[in-house]
Amino acid sequence: MRLAELSERSGVSTATIKYYLREGLLPPGRRVTATQAEYDEEHLRRLRLVRALIQVGGVTVASAREVLAALENDDLDRHDRLGTAVWALPHGPAPAADDPAAEAARRSADELLRRVGWSYGGAAPAPSPAYGMLVAAIAALARLGYPCGVDDLEPYARAMGRLAVTDLDLVERYGGSPDEQVEAAVALTVLYEPVLLSLRRLAEAEESRRRFEER
Amino acid sequence: MRLAELSERSGVSTATIKYYLREGLLPPGRRVTATQAEYDEEHLRRLRLVRALIQVGGVTVASAREVLAALENDDLDRHDRLGTAVWALPHGPAPAADDPAAEAARRSADELLRRVGWSYGGAAPAPSPAYGMLVAAIAALARLGYPCGVDDLEPYARAMGRLAVTDLDLVERYGGSPDEQVEAAVALTVLYEPVLLSLRRLAEAEESRRRFEER
Repeated sequence: MRLAELSERSGVSTATIKYYLREGLLPPGRRVTATQAEYDEEHLRRLRLVRALIQVGGVTVASAREVLAALENDDLDRHDRLGTAVWALPHGPAPAADDPAAEAARRSADELLRRVGWSYGGAAPAPSPAYGMLVAAIAALARLGYPCGVDDLEPYARAMGRLAVTDLDLVERYGGSPDEQVEAAVALTVLYEPVLLSLRRLAEAEESRRRFEER
Repeated sequence: MRLAELSERSGVSTATIKYYLREGLLPPGRRVTATQAEYDEEHLRRLRLVRALIQVGGVTVASAREVLAALENDDLDRHDRLGTAVWALPHGPAPAADDPAAEAARRSADELLRRVGWSYGGAAPAPSPAYGMLVAAIAALARLGYPCGVDDLEPYARAMGRLAVTDLDLVERYGGSPDEQVEAAVALTVLYEPVLLSLRRLAEAEESRRRFEER
């Protein structure tokens, strides 16, 4: 397909597509004349992923490039490609090294991961950014006067563990090649974050109404 | 306590506290001399909430002021105070009116809320920003080639419903006056968002390892 059709089918303007091409977020099309190139279904899929990362995930162009590089790295197996791609997603600042709350938070996070039997967070040579984000969040809770113990955190971890099974079932149902499935898993990780946060706020309001509404 | 002690106990610099005082995010202290004021436990609690909103929640000073105004509004009952405060939290853009995916997304969101028995996220006549965020997220999924039906979304809503019960149990365990509980509920809504997102990414990596790792 030509650039105009790629734009129409993806809902992304031709100017933005040209920008992504220049930035290396999309592979170049197959040149057919001096001024025209031909794009295929793979460009369309890639373009959708880039939009998911940048528009919904708030990922920078540089981080999006890292995510895509991980997805294309044939030296990694499927699992490691997904892990490396999720690694490149934006995350809050890691806890400061001199933060006294951070050491206690790190112990809580480690104990939590041990309890739910997850190895990825700390088992890799360096802890993942998601692990750093968890430690920072636990430290912030303590510092702000809402300390939470491992017992408090466990139901959240179990709930996320169950949803990860749901997520990857969904990915397998979309089908496609193994590469396409890894790509879909990264997209869904990002695209379901606002779904989860908005549902949680609606659920909070609902549960608060149930408990606190004065009749 | 004096400003220096308030700073030490909250971990917030005196310059930042003075800025919050000027911006009306903290009520003024009780003046004891021409140059000194006295602060109490309520200032400390309020300061912690402001930090949670601004530093962890990424809330702007203007939005934080709205959240606090809702918490102090004696015309609202406790439920409406929480609902209004959560209302003022930042949320993504609402779906564009002319977006063809938005209409279908709105029908999905309505059917989902009907199934789980929730209102639109507040007693208010207009749907809440969290509802708009949900519709935008569902529309983005469809537009990017990952359509999700109400059956796909339901497990996420049920999971968030269960966690909202856990959240408010935690709030009631912290105890305090009804006003303090509403304040804690707002703080926890914000502070647990990075906890949830980081745990979800760790869970995704774990589940991906289980399914995709080449042995």
